[in-house]
Amino acid sequence: MPRTITVAAAQMGPIAHAPTNPGGPASREPALARLLTLLEDAAAQGAQLVVFPELALTTFFPRALLTDAADVAALFEPESDAPGAPSIVDSPHLQPLLARASALGVDVSIGYAERWTDAAAPQTTTDYNTAIYYSARTGAVVAKYRKVHLPGRTTMLPPGSAQQLEKHYFTPGNLGFQAFRIPGVYDDSAGHNTPQPIAGMLICNDRRWAEAWRCLGLQGVELVLCGYNTSDYKPQEPGSVQEQTELALLHHHTSCQAGSYTNACFSVHVAKAGVEAEGAGGGLIGGTVIYDPLGRKVGETATLGDELLVATLDLDMCAQPKQTIFNFANHRRVEHYARIIEQVGVVEPPL
Amino acid sequence: MPRTITVAAAQMGPIAHAPTNPGGPASREPALARLLTLLEDAAAQGAQLVVFPELALTTFFPRALLTDAADVAALFEPESDAPGAPSIVDSPHLQPLLARASALGVDVSIGYAERWTDAAAPQTTTDYNTAIYYSARTGAVVAKYRKVHLPGRTTMLPPGSAQQLEKHYFTPGNLGFQAFRIPGVYDDSAGHNTPQPIAGMLICNDRRWAEAWRCLGLQGVELVLCGYNTSDYKPQEPGSVQEQTELALLHHHTSCQAGSYTNACFSVHVAKAGVEAEGAGGGLIGGTVIYDPLGRKVGETATLGDELLVATLDLDMCAQPKQTIFNFANHRRVEHYARIIEQVGVVEPPL
Repeated sequence: MPRTITVAAAQMGPIAHAPTNPGGPASREPALARLLTLLEDAAAQGAQLVVFPELALTTFFPRALLTDAADVAALFEPESDAPGAPSIVDSPHLQPLLARASALGVDVSIGYAERWTDAAAPQTTTDYNTAIYYSARTGAVVAKYRKVHLPGRTTMLPPGSAQQLEKHYFTPGNLGFQAFRIPGVYDDSAGHNTPQPIAGMLICNDRRWAEAWRCLGLQGVELVLCGYNTSDYKPQEPGSVQEQTELALLHHHTSCQAGSYTNACFSVHVAKAGVEAEGAGGGLIGGTVIYDPLGRKVGETATLGDELLVATLDLDMCAQPKQTIFNFANHRRVEHYARIIEQVGVVEPPL
Repeated sequence: MPRTITVAAAQMGPIAHAPTNPGGPASREPALARLLTLLEDAAAQGAQLVVFPELALTTFFPRALLTDAADVAALFEPESDAPGAPSIVDSPHLQPLLARASALGVDVSIGYAERWTDAAAPQTTTDYNTAIYYSARTGAVVAKYRKVHLPGRTTMLPPGSAQQLEKHYFTPGNLGFQAFRIPGVYDDSAGHNTPQPIAGMLICNDRRWAEAWRCLGLQGVELVLCGYNTSDYKPQEPGSVQEQTELALLHHHTSCQAGSYTNACFSVHVAKAGVEAEGAGGGLIGGTVIYDPLGRKVGETATLGDELLVATLDLDMCAQPKQTIFNFANHRRVEHYARIIEQVGVVEPPL
């Protein structure tokens, strides 16, 4: 049986940033309506999976420092493993989307801000930048990923700078890089033994980190799903708006292309794009793109608005490079890689 | 003091492959003469360092299986740490080049086939695909690198295929990825404290492996030097000659660009190019290129022959990305990278 999967990369245009209450409740309903429209359009085009951006339910709020706890809480989805606690699929901000996905038989990968309460320590919460893979066929979240590589800082840069406060808002993900099989894409009734797709998730800045890609590659990943919100211009860095935007797109593409090529997998990278807020740091690049296992661009969006990129991917294309140039068992020399684990920062040769 | 260095990437055209004696003694003298011409031209253009390709003294012999031990021995430079054994800088195939480099005050990085005899085990030899960094100022080899990621196979593919037998000819390098300071580039007399450049070497296929780049990046590398011999067409793989050549160049560039960008360093990639032998596997891509720490192309050669690409690189450009987006101490999460060391090959999620 051919191992194809039809994927829709569902780029979103900006989610408006209200200056006094960025991403607050008022902006939730229009965003959900847009997600539903994209889902319907994707299903009509035959998509089996729709990939939405990072923080797809709200504006990219880490560009601002919110000081009102209620404002912050309104941006997060509460989750817990406490007995009887509601699941993420019951969130009023997600439930209508996932219910419709189930009805359409379309899987969904989507990013959001997670406020986690551990049943063992109910007095504290931990906030993550999270993505889930929801299977329409099983009606369940089959994989969760919490962003590991949080960019930016815990504190503000001088006024006039583009701020990036993910390290203030979020805790680095604690789930590692776990690949998973997407259930039920291929008929697994008696007599059929087609392996289900091996997928993995990354979020935004993770795509620049080869360690993240390799951890998935070492699990035979065939399809990497990655949403992002990437700033187009930072006044504190050199270059004009146009120069910086072009450079941001170059960095985006080279990271995605090299990650796909060197791990012999398809990858789907989905932007939230356009101007979410006036002033420094309010603009986001587009460039939603799919790369194939040979590092070739399958397609790319053309706008900074809500836009679908739909492609049918032949996952068996991964096999040839995985068996030859990137046959890890044949070629990797882990005895020389210890520094990657043993050392976090730089240790320069002596002067 | 500005931390610039003027580098010449000295692309070589093909070194003729005599069918009965590939790369044998007859081809050594013309190759050396060409190296000397490139060195003179580079010095005349102000180069402080000339980077030559992988296996720059011979044809890329791993495309053929040589069965005569004397033919093979003729392609290698003998080296040993036995007392009184001659140094590599005394090799008749290199000495004239390095002596002229010293006279010109130009450093040289160059690749060659090394046949190593360990004084502690003089009955056996070990063959490596090696590069050295020779300092004109100190008159010594200040760094040696032995290729870690040997591509290809130990045995032949069916006749008509392009062969890649590096795993037959060479042992994987045992020196790891050691960055080093290039001595004496900046005046280090009293009162000057300009740090000397931090460099590292890779060879050919290593540039496709993010682990190799990261090991250098974790040492603060500012300048990666990498020679290569990369096949343009393999009959056993899909696509026309033109399609495969374009794809080989794409893979070359995305690997070099992503490696430079994600480790915030300059990198210099130097081809042996053109048709070295008739038939499958005899043609090599060009594309000698320099990338900057932001992943931008500084320059690229235009031919498949002997050609210099000279550029003055401002190493202080590395600082901004090393301190922000690729500040490893701030952003890396080594607790999630264990798989990179603990696992050589792929472990797929269960079916």
